[in-house]
Amino acid sequence: MASDSEAQRALQYEQTLMYGRYTQDLGTFAKDEAARLRLQEGDTPRPRRPSELLEYSQGRCAPCRVCALQCQRFLISKVGEDWVFLILLGLVMALVSWAMDFAIATCLQAQKWMYGGLDTNVLLQYMAWVTYPTVLITFSAGFTQILAPQAVGSGIPEMKTILRGVVLKEYLTLKTFVAKVIGLTCALGSGMPLGKEGPFVHIASMCAALLSRFLSLFGGFYENEARNIEMLAAACAVGVGCCFAAPIGGVLFSIEVTSTFFAVRNYWRGFFAATFSAFIFRVLAVWNKDEETITALFKTRFRLDFPFDLQELPAFAVIGIASGFGGALFVYLNRKIVQFMRRQKTINRFLMKKRLLFPALVTLIISTLTFPPGFGQFMAGQLTQKDTLVTLFDNQTWAKQGISNEFEYLGILEAWHHPRSNVFVTLIVFILMKFWMSALATTIPVPCGAFMPVFVIGAAFGRLVGESMAAWFPDGIHTDSNIYRIVPGGYAVVGAAALSGAVTHTVSTAVIVFELTGQISHILPVMIAVILANAVAQSLQPSLYDSIIRIKKLPYLPELGWGHHEKYNVRVEDIMVRDIGYVTLNCKYRDLQQVLHSTKMKSLPLVESAESMILLGSIERAQVGALLSSQLSPQRRLLTLRQKVLPEDGHRLSDSSIRFQISTETSSGTPARPALRKPLKPALKRVHSSPPDSPPAGSADHAGIALKNLFCANAATEPTEAQGTAYHKAKRVRISIVEEMILGDKMTPAEILEWEEQQLDQLVDFSSAKIDPAPFQLVEHTSLHKTHTIFSLLGLDHAFVTSIGRLVGMVSLKELRKAIEGSLTGKGVKVRPPLASFRDSTASTTEADTTALRQLWDRHQHHHMPREAGPGGDDEDTPKGQ
Amino acid sequence: MASDSEAQRALQYEQTLMYGRYTQDLGTFAKDEAARLRLQEGDTPRPRRPSELLEYSQGRCAPCRVCALQCQRFLISKVGEDWVFLILLGLVMALVSWAMDFAIATCLQAQKWMYGGLDTNVLLQYMAWVTYPTVLITFSAGFTQILAPQAVGSGIPEMKTILRGVVLKEYLTLKTFVAKVIGLTCALGSGMPLGKEGPFVHIASMCAALLSRFLSLFGGFYENEARNIEMLAAACAVGVGCCFAAPIGGVLFSIEVTSTFFAVRNYWRGFFAATFSAFIFRVLAVWNKDEETITALFKTRFRLDFPFDLQELPAFAVIGIASGFGGALFVYLNRKIVQFMRRQKTINRFLMKKRLLFPALVTLIISTLTFPPGFGQFMAGQLTQKDTLVTLFDNQTWAKQGISNEFEYLGILEAWHHPRSNVFVTLIVFILMKFWMSALATTIPVPCGAFMPVFVIGAAFGRLVGESMAAWFPDGIHTDSNIYRIVPGGYAVVGAAALSGAVTHTVSTAVIVFELTGQISHILPVMIAVILANAVAQSLQPSLYDSIIRIKKLPYLPELGWGHHEKYNVRVEDIMVRDIGYVTLNCKYRDLQQVLHSTKMKSLPLVESAESMILLGSIERAQVGALLSSQLSPQRRLLTLRQKVLPEDGHRLSDSSIRFQISTETSSGTPARPALRKPLKPALKRVHSSPPDSPPAGSADHAGIALKNLFCANAATEPTEAQGTAYHKAKRVRISIVEEMILGDKMTPAEILEWEEQQLDQLVDFSSAKIDPAPFQLVEHTSLHKTHTIFSLLGLDHAFVTSIGRLVGMVSLKELRKAIEGSLTGKGVKVRPPLASFRDSTASTTEADTTALRQLWDRHQHHHMPREAGPGGDDEDTPKGQ
Repeated sequence: MASDSEAQRALQYEQTLMYGRYTQDLGTFAKDEAARLRLQEGDTPRPRRPSELLEYSQGRCAPCRVCALQCQRFLISKVGEDWVFLILLGLVMALVSWAMDFAIATCLQAQKWMYGGLDTNVLLQYMAWVTYPTVLITFSAGFTQILAPQAVGSGIPEMKTILRGVVLKEYLTLKTFVAKVIGLTCALGSGMPLGKEGPFVHIASMCAALLSRFLSLFGGFYENEARNIEMLAAACAVGVGCCFAAPIGGVLFSIEVTSTFFAVRNYWRGFFAATFSAFIFRVLAVWNKDEETITALFKTRFRLDFPFDLQELPAFAVIGIASGFGGALFVYLNRKIVQFMRRQKTINRFLMKKRLLFPALVTLIISTLTFPPGFGQFMAGQLTQKDTLVTLFDNQTWAKQGISNEFEYLGILEAWHHPRSNVFVTLIVFILMKFWMSALATTIPVPCGAFMPVFVIGAAFGRLVGESMAAWFPDGIHTDSNIYRIVPGGYAVVGAAALSGAVTHTVSTAVIVFELTGQISHILPVMIAVILANAVAQSLQPSLYDSIIRIKKLPYLPELGWGHHEKYNVRVEDIMVRDIGYVTLNCKYRDLQQVLHSTKMKSLPLVESAESMILLGSIERAQVGALLSSQLSPQRRLLTLRQKVLPEDGHRLSDSSIRFQISTETSSGTPARPALRKPLKPALKRVHSSPPDSPPAGSADHAGIALKNLFCANAATEPTEAQGTAYHKAKRVRISIVEEMILGDKMTPAEILEWEEQQLDQLVDFSSAKIDPAPFQLVEHTSLHKTHTIFSLLGLDHAFVTSIGRLVGMVSLKELRKAIEGSLTGKGVKVRPPLASFRDSTASTTEADTTALRQLWDRHQHHHMPREAGPGGDDEDTPKGQ
Repeated sequence: MASDSEAQRALQYEQTLMYGRYTQDLGTFAKDEAARLRLQEGDTPRPRRPSELLEYSQGRCAPCRVCALQCQRFLISKVGEDWVFLILLGLVMALVSWAMDFAIATCLQAQKWMYGGLDTNVLLQYMAWVTYPTVLITFSAGFTQILAPQAVGSGIPEMKTILRGVVLKEYLTLKTFVAKVIGLTCALGSGMPLGKEGPFVHIASMCAALLSRFLSLFGGFYENEARNIEMLAAACAVGVGCCFAAPIGGVLFSIEVTSTFFAVRNYWRGFFAATFSAFIFRVLAVWNKDEETITALFKTRFRLDFPFDLQELPAFAVIGIASGFGGALFVYLNRKIVQFMRRQKTINRFLMKKRLLFPALVTLIISTLTFPPGFGQFMAGQLTQKDTLVTLFDNQTWAKQGISNEFEYLGILEAWHHPRSNVFVTLIVFILMKFWMSALATTIPVPCGAFMPVFVIGAAFGRLVGESMAAWFPDGIHTDSNIYRIVPGGYAVVGAAALSGAVTHTVSTAVIVFELTGQISHILPVMIAVILANAVAQSLQPSLYDSIIRIKKLPYLPELGWGHHEKYNVRVEDIMVRDIGYVTLNCKYRDLQQVLHSTKMKSLPLVESAESMILLGSIERAQVGALLSSQLSPQRRLLTLRQKVLPEDGHRLSDSSIRFQISTETSSGTPARPALRKPLKPALKRVHSSPPDSPPAGSADHAGIALKNLFCANAATEPTEAQGTAYHKAKRVRISIVEEMILGDKMTPAEILEWEEQQLDQLVDFSSAKIDPAPFQLVEHTSLHKTHTIFSLLGLDHAFVTSIGRLVGMVSLKELRKAIEGSLTGKGVKVRPPLASFRDSTASTTEADTTALRQLWDRHQHHHMPREAGPGGDDEDTPKGQ
């Protein structure tokens, strides 16, 4: 999958979405782009030529064919447009959603048919009831595990991380797409309490990524980084929209769940694609004769003239608050189950060996408990998720006068009715059992979401409250002449929205229920309950998706809470790291080596000099490594040797001949550094320009004893993707170089070491390095609140703190996260140094600023005279890297 | 209104929302804050003391009183919380909305009663019908004009500008609030085709601003800049929410209309406040016995089981496309009317003299045309806006079998029925007349919006299409056994959403109609129509609010269009201004003066030196002025004189004595600069530290002949608020200084001039200036698309372009606007230099980068030797200011 890695590389740019890094890389990108365009220009004459020829040909149908060709060309030119892409995306996703729904319904019907056909023998019935989902889930888990383990789980946490600009490997590939679609179909077909909404967000995103790669075959602008993010955001909306046929709710939900800042500019994309997708999804149902016309997925028929009484609002508020606690409990339970499974070493080791045992076991337990003739009869176990929702949103009141005897349970409603039990008992058992079952089932390593199970539990809880109210006030609350009975179905709608809102920390579940039920008459109760549920849940637990992000240790930035004021008082200077490594413009290669050893930062600040500390830019860690390795490369060593032998005819030899040029002389003298440097430069430049298309970091030839240690250490401390591959490439290259060395290099290791020591004492030549000329800068006084805003707006992972051009520190995502979580959990004092509260009154900070400026000014007055390091402010003597 | 100016000052910080300007000002803010906190600590023992005493007192009710006091303290501590603020805001706005609705309904009823009571005489009837609105509108226009002209119009354009971080004077004051509420009530009470939605956004924002100022009396954190913006955004949502009782639509509409980037973090605020507000608004209606329970404002009763047929969708699409054209036409017409009124000099002069004539005239024309016995009978003239909507959303079909005779028009429906005419004719006349009437009426200088009139026109157009469809397919389209007749009311809902969406360029009007009608069954037709209408309208015209922003010449940033690819190819280097003025660290005061004369930029870049051009920070124009004026101040002149007389006992005198120290000697010698500078510095410092609480910019004493010219020029070229007040303060101070001068200064004007010339040759001491240490930087390769994103994300108005620390140019909102509008109107080539398209292939840019870095490096190697200016890259010799 060569194109996959390309897409990954393209996505890697997204972290730099907002600011001007990778200048030279952009340069090479521009070069490639230009080359591609030139190639296209070479290509386009080909389709044009026949039409031009046709105009001259005398046939009768020639004009038609010219016209057709022009149409074709016009269509191809339109392929690059956004709306074409969005329509295609919507269409594909609607088809996928409908096909999956069809397959799932078939699976569920097959189970029911098997279960129904074996009604002579309870044991056989049980075997069928239990084996079927176990096989499906086990297959789903195994299939996903083998094809693409990235397809496991909801996918929303990963999409949130990707939309933040972080590159997750293999998350948007065709393999993952196939694994997710098939795995999800099997998982949902098993009848377990799993949802399809989260995975659908992931599927839609993969679909968008694949589609954009496909369309780029026709030419177009699909490589743009910013556009990719915009399209992924729209794809998330499509995912939710075509899953529930809820375009508006889909857009809002995807925004709430995946974004921290949202560009209103991109709003229409989501609406357009989600509407089209939902439309096609429902039209397919009409064409399939499932429906007479386009209506809501779970249509309700509550009365319109008097949907609810004002005095019922407290009951709705109770649902909201209880759902808030319930949602927080669900997130907590889900996390604890995962953590428990991880912590139990013995269980863990056993399960790791037999990966499919855990899913099978969970499925076995859950399906045993829902077995209709067994315990399932007390919890409507025979109903599928969809049937459960339909019955819960039912228009009738189940419990008239407290006892359910009067009412005839028709059709699927019968499942809720137990001859020796009460509908209340059934509902309570259902809620309790489904609660832990759903929390457990969503930890199975199959593609699955938690939204729908939670939605169903919420609906059941709402129904319970509604039935209780109906039993309490049989003739309604209204005191006037008209009798308006209480509608328990409305309570179910409110409960569903509230609980799913609490678990996901979203308000837009309200809109989703309106679109799902096709009625908006309960808007105020739903809104009140959802907001209360959110308020309670957000103050107790993170959202389910954030919880998964933390469990999976994905990079994240915690949200600032509801009105914590201390965040306005904490400043960058309280949280920043002052002791950071840096690279100066006049440093030696030895300094680079030391900085690489001493710090783990991914990008190093480049300052003018250790005295002035004026920030000029930042340089990637990999770039520093490349600089070092090229300085210590065998080519340069050979060149040095060669230059000693043939200092006069160096220009005659080609680069390839340089590489295999064997000089039999061994150098032992150490020439004076400044004398060596000047003549070296042109030769060095030639070496660099010899492979013009080589990637700047990876293919730099690595060798040398000192460097080997360095690189091994690097790879151990920071096993990031880029470095890992660079390391492997370096290894490979090193082997080939060792061959060369055997062939030609006659230096002894001692001599090499000596030469390397020499080389390290030279000044660094930055001309071949990629330098980000404008890294993001903050000042010391920037508040935590602002810093959080900037980090989440621009998707930063670090920023340098400067004071009038001088580098004084750095803030990374880690510090910010620590500071926010510290200040939110009441440990805000820890974050803020003890003196911070007195600082404001002493005005020492403004003094420090003035002092710093004065020093800079004084320095300037003295015409750049060398000065002893930082005698002034205490924040000036940031220690040099080691 | 002293507190108003304070609020203005507080808002002034919002332009710097995201980045670290005003460092020293924040320092003084922190000082004030600390002082306030200390004061509060001094205060709090007072309420605590009685409770402590009470515990020792022996009364029986003492515990109760302790408890009550604790409760009170707890409540006061809660006042600072966000949710208390939001609840209060929602409550107040609901009350305002309800009271205004009540007043408007009373006004309209009074008109109807007058008109009905005079049915004996048509002339009298006409007089009553016409005079009543004319008087109301004239009063409204006059009242607004006198009290607060800022209250005129919708307010959404202004709120959009304010939320972008721009300070608009007097837009959020109590005076404007009163003017807007009373003016709007009168305007709407007149029955003109005006809306209340736009003004309500403004009213809610003012309410939020006033409320936060009121609550800050109790102490709290209401001064925070970022929080103010968040609360204003929530207030906008409340405005729409309580106007239509549409919380969700309100939040979404306000986001779409006022924001470019939206923080999901603030989402809940809007929902919370808008829901509470809508709830109270509707509860008030229930308590007032207008309604039986909480329902939608314009409740519809369409059938649920078969809302529309799939084959009706083309008709809905036609409504959408036609609405798109109609919406664009409305915006165009509205703008043309305003421009026509401005351009016609004679009309303009006449109207300027008699400001109230234009409103009166317009009202007269419109009310004459709607006079029910006159032309009004053909356009349902007697119906109020609300009644019109109710009838248009009616469930019944008016035109059965093409002729409307069969159907009985009951109640207010009768207005649409004309005995000698057709309901189609009535509808067409209504649409055409209302269209231009609404476009004209919204240009009247009264507080008014255009949303509602457009909404009504859209509903009428939808109804027209619906009635036509019903006439065309009397038994519905469905071919199966069931007959489902066409519901023209549904078409009216679709039309209303589509036309209002087209005019405002929003999708959320769809949600608003669902909430207004209480039915969501037409979701797909509405979404399709709204999206199509938006697509058409956005490609033809700006939104109504953006159009007004342009007419009013408010600062704005145009949106990037729907998928214009060229924006990805234009780079900052193509649009930036290269020839910018700058301040160097080692410049003289004369250079400052020259820079101020030569450039109009609001903030000047501070670079290390003209050779290195390393950007250190930026300095406000006002600061540069203050530096200059303090250098040329009479105090310093007196000090110089004094120092010559008493060089030994300068430390003995207090600051006040320095000010009035009269030295009778006159200086004529020009001391050597370096000799003078050193002894001056401590004295200078003391003068600066003497008034520790003085604002840094405003109170700097202005005097001197050279400076006077300078400042006058400043005030003329850039009459911004801050400078204006600074200028006035300076004037006042100058007068007092002139008195001093008369008292003490015995220098002749020639001597003063000579002294000033001396002073101008000194090096600038920046230690007292506020310097923004981290102005926003871009690099040359940043694409236009990214630049736009950054500018709108961070609310910037300018950014410096740097290349490895070196300043190479600047981009301001103006350049960006020019570039975007150029590239959008097909003049993209102008923006991009001719060579730009070839640039990518030659890779000259990366070369330039390397060259620049090499130069910097070489310079550094030569140990800061002075170098001739920019012999290398052509982008290096950025000319110095002038």
